[in-house]
Amino acid sequence: MGCGALGSVIGAHLARLPDVELYAYDVLAEHMRAIRERGLKISGVADFTVRLNATSEPSEIPPCDFGVFATKSIHTRAAIEQTAHVFGPSAAVCSVQNGLGNEEMIAERVRYVIRGATGLAVHMREPGHAGIEFYGDVWIGPFEPSGTPYSLVEELAVLMNRAGLHFVPLRDARGAQWTKLIFNSAANGVGALTGLHHGAAARFVPTAALYEALLQEGEVVARALDIVLTSDPRELVAEGARAPTKRYASMLVDVLAQHPTEVDFINGAIADHGEKLGVPVPLNRAVWQLLKGLEHSWSNPS
Amino acid sequence: MGCGALGSVIGAHLARLPDVELYAYDVLAEHMRAIRERGLKISGVADFTVRLNATSEPSEIPPCDFGVFATKSIHTRAAIEQTAHVFGPSAAVCSVQNGLGNEEMIAERVRYVIRGATGLAVHMREPGHAGIEFYGDVWIGPFEPSGTPYSLVEELAVLMNRAGLHFVPLRDARGAQWTKLIFNSAANGVGALTGLHHGAAARFVPTAALYEALLQEGEVVARALDIVLTSDPRELVAEGARAPTKRYASMLVDVLAQHPTEVDFINGAIADHGEKLGVPVPLNRAVWQLLKGLEHSWSNPS
Repeated sequence: MGCGALGSVIGAHLARLPDVELYAYDVLAEHMRAIRERGLKISGVADFTVRLNATSEPSEIPPCDFGVFATKSIHTRAAIEQTAHVFGPSAAVCSVQNGLGNEEMIAERVRYVIRGATGLAVHMREPGHAGIEFYGDVWIGPFEPSGTPYSLVEELAVLMNRAGLHFVPLRDARGAQWTKLIFNSAANGVGALTGLHHGAAARFVPTAALYEALLQEGEVVARALDIVLTSDPRELVAEGARAPTKRYASMLVDVLAQHPTEVDFINGAIADHGEKLGVPVPLNRAVWQLLKGLEHSWSNPS
Repeated sequence: MGCGALGSVIGAHLARLPDVELYAYDVLAEHMRAIRERGLKISGVADFTVRLNATSEPSEIPPCDFGVFATKSIHTRAAIEQTAHVFGPSAAVCSVQNGLGNEEMIAERVRYVIRGATGLAVHMREPGHAGIEFYGDVWIGPFEPSGTPYSLVEELAVLMNRAGLHFVPLRDARGAQWTKLIFNSAANGVGALTGLHHGAAARFVPTAALYEALLQEGEVVARALDIVLTSDPRELVAEGARAPTKRYASMLVDVLAQHPTEVDFINGAIADHGEKLGVPVPLNRAVWQLLKGLEHSWSNPS
């Protein structure tokens, strides 16, 4: 569900498994048509093209055992409304999306939900063609309130790893999700507001200091929620900054295209949690306020 | 010194006084040529054109009794280096610029310095033509470390008011300067990062909340410095938001033209004072960091 860069890369890998019947769904009809007509192409550290079913018509999708949500978080609610009928009472739907709150929305319509966070570095090249810069891990675990059996998490990980991806099943994926979330609060928030690619923002002294302040704010919120991060978000910052290419945060890509960003699900979500817990979150709140203001400016308000 | 919107409006008014010999100085030679050839035009709530001496050549300026600095703060140091020879031991130079730190730079080269802050609403239309939206007050007072006689402050105010401007002489102009500074920290900081005109930013709930948080941060710093504001900066916010036209903060105008902003002298100055005093200033520091990052992005860093 959602066939942008991340959904395309995951879908293309799965489509190479002869025993998997795969449907790609996205609301962008011309994108789906490109995949149907020319196949789905992946290039970068992997290079191949596959054929798969691709549709913008939810009624064309048969019942599925697993779903993988890779839409922008702002489209999760609409996508699950459109596709909930695909998932029967034993099916499980996994979010590999950015930010917080996607699993909750999916769980309103689907019995079993799997929490996920991804370290894949991918980007869209054109309709039907996505790039992959490296195979990062994808961490998945049961979405706690839905009581998803851990065996379903393991089954999905085995499937994905047979397809050549690096899925890591965890009893509790919240630490991995928050590690990525806190990294994103800095890399996406600062990138979107400054126009700097990640490496430049991480090296330039003023923005590096703001990265650090945002990371610290998020870490205090995670601790207050009893969430143990799986690694230091600074390692993700450093790893991304070493990349030989200029990496534009996905929210910066959105800003440049004047598309609504995922800030509600990243900095906004951290700020909401912090304020509920009485933990100071002025910087995540300010990044949220500034990006909401920037998005508002595109409507040319009176 | 500095013949942008503010310098043009002040200079044009002074040029109407028959007993004043006035020299306009700006580094933009084509702008000075336009003034020499066609005069300096003011339109808006006032409408007139005047002839005056205009030059980009400091050696053409004779000794002057008063100087008025209206450059962007980032050009103050260069401008006083170029023109210090104009001001003898009894001359006084008044800054009517945005932000903090201009008087200090001028005082390194000039005996008597006058602190100023302006409520004039002006904008540049084209070389040799500035608009004025309303006659706000201009508050002036002795720059404390230079021991400027108050009589010089009064003499300058009398001159300016004879010219039709609204200058208010004060024994201590720091409160007026900080009132404007704190207003600017919100209006300029938020405007420059969001692209919103002032009225829209002041009305949109998320950015209005950030305005308020920035105002509060600045007020705490002013209190820690024993500076008594002359009015509530929220009145300046409300007054500007009532304007019938869309007012773009000067730092937003700079951002749109990819010119360096005055953020060092506005949010950066408040953050520096706060950090020195141990007063928390995360939001002014973050606005400074983000704008430095945005300016850095224009150099297309590797």
